[in-house]
Amino acid sequence: MKIAVSGKGGVGKTTISASLISFFLSKGYKVFAVDADPDVSLGTVLGIDDDSVEGIKPIVEMREVISKKSGGGGAYFPLDPQVEDLMEEYVIQKDNLFFLKMGAVKQGGSACYCRENTVLNALVNSLLVKQKEIVLLDMGAGIEHLTRGTSGGVDLMIILTEASKVSVNTALTVKKLAQELGVKNINFIGNKIRTEKEKEFLKNTLPPDEILGFIEYNEEVLERAMGVHPLEKSSAAIIDIKAIGEEILARNS
Amino acid sequence: MKIAVSGKGGVGKTTISASLISFFLSKGYKVFAVDADPDVSLGTVLGIDDDSVEGIKPIVEMREVISKKSGGGGAYFPLDPQVEDLMEEYVIQKDNLFFLKMGAVKQGGSACYCRENTVLNALVNSLLVKQKEIVLLDMGAGIEHLTRGTSGGVDLMIILTEASKVSVNTALTVKKLAQELGVKNINFIGNKIRTEKEKEFLKNTLPPDEILGFIEYNEEVLERAMGVHPLEKSSAAIIDIKAIGEEILARNS
Repeated sequence: MKIAVSGKGGVGKTTISASLISFFLSKGYKVFAVDADPDVSLGTVLGIDDDSVEGIKPIVEMREVISKKSGGGGAYFPLDPQVEDLMEEYVIQKDNLFFLKMGAVKQGGSACYCRENTVLNALVNSLLVKQKEIVLLDMGAGIEHLTRGTSGGVDLMIILTEASKVSVNTALTVKKLAQELGVKNINFIGNKIRTEKEKEFLKNTLPPDEILGFIEYNEEVLERAMGVHPLEKSSAAIIDIKAIGEEILARNS
Repeated sequence: MKIAVSGKGGVGKTTISASLISFFLSKGYKVFAVDADPDVSLGTVLGIDDDSVEGIKPIVEMREVISKKSGGGGAYFPLDPQVEDLMEEYVIQKDNLFFLKMGAVKQGGSACYCRENTVLNALVNSLLVKQKEIVLLDMGAGIEHLTRGTSGGVDLMIILTEASKVSVNTALTVKKLAQELGVKNINFIGNKIRTEKEKEFLKNTLPPDEILGFIEYNEEVLERAMGVHPLEKSSAAIIDIKAIGEEILARNS
């Protein structure tokens, strides 16, 4: 399964991505976690040290690997040991977690990230994901990854939103763009929920059956619980994440 | 004075931009407020209705106006009544507030926002801002507006950050990129500050004399206080905004 996590800046994409990655790891999945924001932070939140994240090559430099493996475009290739060897310089591996980053920080005024987005799209499109494997992309804030089509190859677009008008506006724009990209499954998660009223607001402004669940406001608990072997704590926020993780697996199996 | 407001997704760029715009309006400035994020929300937060924001043309379509007024590139032009007439379709005016948007939402998979960023950069570079006029750009989250050079023509880059490691990492990356772009004045604002310890953390991780001030955690107060004639309330967050506004004017006069 290939998943992209998107939404307005500050809704908690990286925190929730890392929590879901931890959940899938705890269920025995092999997870390919991709930081698709040039301003990388998923690695840090997953507990990988900054030097290691700096040290790997970004996906944008994998063009030849992708091209060779997919026979010049179009064909699928599996993440078998042979491909993993080719990818070694691009990946930080910790047990069943494989961390990759889309791009690196460039010089001010030097360039856009169009090429990075194109190569990432090629990789996501050509990867053949097997049983018990998940590719999860933590997208940049806003909508440009959608107008660029970066996340077009995913099976599931998870859109995070808080219970505010501007956050829901972005969420619905993201949904419309994802539909235009042909993404089949599009679901929402209500994050940083403080009251029943906030839940009701989201149930009234989003299609209720497309909501995977709600996560109680408690960033600190989630942040402290993250890393590669997390989620053993039992706060409300962590219980919410586990329920949502199970819901994702149930809906997409 | 031309100001860009930047920082990691969710640090409060749009809320603080709108609050500063309100402050400058209250001091008698003419303010050109530019939403430089394709996922527009500054207009909503300023209290402009969504249909009006949808209804104006984006700056990307102003290429000919800019080219004509700046004599084909390079020259400066003032925002005099004649230019304001030319800009009429691009601007929502409310008293001394002039609202513009960089781009509009496109179709999924259709294009990047490189052209929008280039045209906005040309506009910012060629505008001759007079006494008692401020151009304020609410930038998209992250760093791409800096690697693209969009915000290269501003006099002051305000970088917002919360008191967390990932937020400060982005803030320092933004500073480095803004320096590479040749922005002369780069300042920080600590936002969503809950404790003295959080202030200390920011004073220890950022250059203390580059910090304009701190804003107490209270988004709701700021949001309720916004709109075109705001800031009359007297909560801690609003007092913080006023102090920071005065500091900006004092440092840049």
